[in-house]
Amino acid sequence: MIYLDNAATSFPKPPEVYSEVLRCMENYAGNPGRSSHDMAIEASSKIMDTRQELSEFFNIPDLLNIVFTCNATQSLNIGIKGILKPGDHVISTVIEHNSVLRPLNYLSKKGVTFTLLGVDENGYLDINNLKKAIRKNTKAIIINHASNVLGTIQDIRAIGEIAKGAGIIFMVDASQSAGVIPIDVACDNIDLLAFPGHKGLYGPQGTGGLYIKDTIELDSFIQGGTGSESLSITQPNFLPDKFESGTLNTPGIAGLCAGIRFIRKVGIENIRKHEIMLVEYLIKELSKLSYIKVYGGCDYKNRGAVVSLNIDNVDVSEVGELLNKKGIAVRTGFHCAPLIHQIIGTNRRGTVRISPGYFNSLEDIEKLIKALKNIHEKRSL
Amino acid sequence: MIYLDNAATSFPKPPEVYSEVLRCMENYAGNPGRSSHDMAIEASSKIMDTRQELSEFFNIPDLLNIVFTCNATQSLNIGIKGILKPGDHVISTVIEHNSVLRPLNYLSKKGVTFTLLGVDENGYLDINNLKKAIRKNTKAIIINHASNVLGTIQDIRAIGEIAKGAGIIFMVDASQSAGVIPIDVACDNIDLLAFPGHKGLYGPQGTGGLYIKDTIELDSFIQGGTGSESLSITQPNFLPDKFESGTLNTPGIAGLCAGIRFIRKVGIENIRKHEIMLVEYLIKELSKLSYIKVYGGCDYKNRGAVVSLNIDNVDVSEVGELLNKKGIAVRTGFHCAPLIHQIIGTNRRGTVRISPGYFNSLEDIEKLIKALKNIHEKRSL
Repeated sequence: MIYLDNAATSFPKPPEVYSEVLRCMENYAGNPGRSSHDMAIEASSKIMDTRQELSEFFNIPDLLNIVFTCNATQSLNIGIKGILKPGDHVISTVIEHNSVLRPLNYLSKKGVTFTLLGVDENGYLDINNLKKAIRKNTKAIIINHASNVLGTIQDIRAIGEIAKGAGIIFMVDASQSAGVIPIDVACDNIDLLAFPGHKGLYGPQGTGGLYIKDTIELDSFIQGGTGSESLSITQPNFLPDKFESGTLNTPGIAGLCAGIRFIRKVGIENIRKHEIMLVEYLIKELSKLSYIKVYGGCDYKNRGAVVSLNIDNVDVSEVGELLNKKGIAVRTGFHCAPLIHQIIGTNRRGTVRISPGYFNSLEDIEKLIKALKNIHEKRSL
Repeated sequence: MIYLDNAATSFPKPPEVYSEVLRCMENYAGNPGRSSHDMAIEASSKIMDTRQELSEFFNIPDLLNIVFTCNATQSLNIGIKGILKPGDHVISTVIEHNSVLRPLNYLSKKGVTFTLLGVDENGYLDINNLKKAIRKNTKAIIINHASNVLGTIQDIRAIGEIAKGAGIIFMVDASQSAGVIPIDVACDNIDLLAFPGHKGLYGPQGTGGLYIKDTIELDSFIQGGTGSESLSITQPNFLPDKFESGTLNTPGIAGLCAGIRFIRKVGIENIRKHEIMLVEYLIKELSKLSYIKVYGGCDYKNRGAVVSLNIDNVDVSEVGELLNKKGIAVRTGFHCAPLIHQIIGTNRRGTVRISPGYFNSLEDIEKLIKALKNIHEKRSL
């Protein structure tokens, strides 16, 4: 199978991810932070190693400010609900995923107001509109770093500057960028960084994380046993325990650790270069075909490895099905990002999404193009 | 290593759990419910198989009423916060884990009141006290099925009857019982059943679940992408999607499926019989030693495989350390269940907790007893 659905979850993972998950399960899957026997200590130590890897990766000053979650959606919910109170205003965009839009919509019933900034048809935000949208009660700006529909990469450094200047919390959803596009929480002025473990960071599913800057006071989200302050029925108020109740996914986090080390070994810039090479080739070849509409821009420096397209007169689900029959895995539909489809005019049909990864080859892309041509030809007969 | 810390997380898992996790990661770890290619469909299908296994295991009428979570703590938080509103009263007990006590304490700041029923020194609840505690505004009863400190098994069938009679929601924390003690949500009148995947059910860490009875209306907890109703920014209101936002832990859930099938193969009654045989032997042998105090009762029919103890004049952490040096893994301290220690008089020192599992042998227990004797002898010199 030619897997081109890396925006949903990366596949395959580097072999060392599989072997570390297995090694953990078979040898050191004690309950981290609970007991003091060797196996529990080795589990804790692996969790700490992963925090260390993540902190270096995102230039996070204190590794204890990284909280493990089960996916980026949980990270976003912890952040969004932890900062926004009735009466607060928050700025986000129409290109967000439902992991941001649905919590905001939920909070709007509890007295939080939100502004969703528009984007152009390539998905880019106009920074001037952002400045104008700031109100007295604006508490936070929440921005999708890279779009899961158009691949658009927003200029988070410029947005971080604005947030910092206005004294507003800056939260970044790095679901599509973590592991592929460099993120530096210090230089980018990021207060809250939500990321999945199972996409660009090559960890297994069931992993994710949230970086919480020291100065940000968040409400606790899930309360429970933390292995700390065990005699108290009050949730500990220190990081990471405040947000890590219950048993962590030790094998998953161990795999994530191996994933990040793989990226460090290969070099994030080489991963990015390879993915963009594939995307550039794909878009250039597709632009020669009049019956294929590709969405999003061609400024490859500011575009991730996600390409949405449509074939004239062919339903997206049919395209997906026919590609699948030829052994090519893509995603079709709305990709859990409802509002951007109004901007690009696909709110009725959705798109076929191609998301290559580091393990894809040019040959994979060639086969995809051939298959797309084939689908069109057969339908035109 | 002789692993006697199964109450924290079971170890080892049956070999088929490891191999299924690996097989999933290497072959079918697509994003379940998102895409329609073969790999995503196989992932969805495995998730559905696991729901099916769980529904048969707990006699749950509709498998879609099972929601996957990352651990029992998340399941408990979803249930507790989903039902309790300001003005509501809830009944629980002093033997609960912090995964119940801390959410209740958190909610008490938001206008929820709670009564914690006392238990006797063996951890048992007096059903008459429960009946007396019911008020007009009592919304729910939340009960720990089996204690992680004393092994006490509460009579959930009797409690379920009372809850049903009074029209009160009955929630069970099956953290220590799921997979070892039969649970039948229909016969036991359980409305909400929270369970971990990584303890008695032999799944990997990072798995858990919540059964929600059809008649129970719960607020959504984490909103986000569900792969369903993608064009709407409102969280779907149907199960399981309402509570399964973001990517599920497919490899973990695949492992959980293999774990439940292992239990079915061996027979839950045989697992229970084996564990109780070990516990009975342990307690009988320890009762011959005047310098060891064992907590909890001797009614083995109503006791799980958890034994808390203390050695006269030896600090629990020292016992843990010395056992660890001899290759025996136990947990020491308060076990995240603060209030029960006041009842058994260990609120200053905690306990040494021995929790054998199906993969332990009588020889393991003999070695433990020998090591405990040894620790006492050396300290008495």
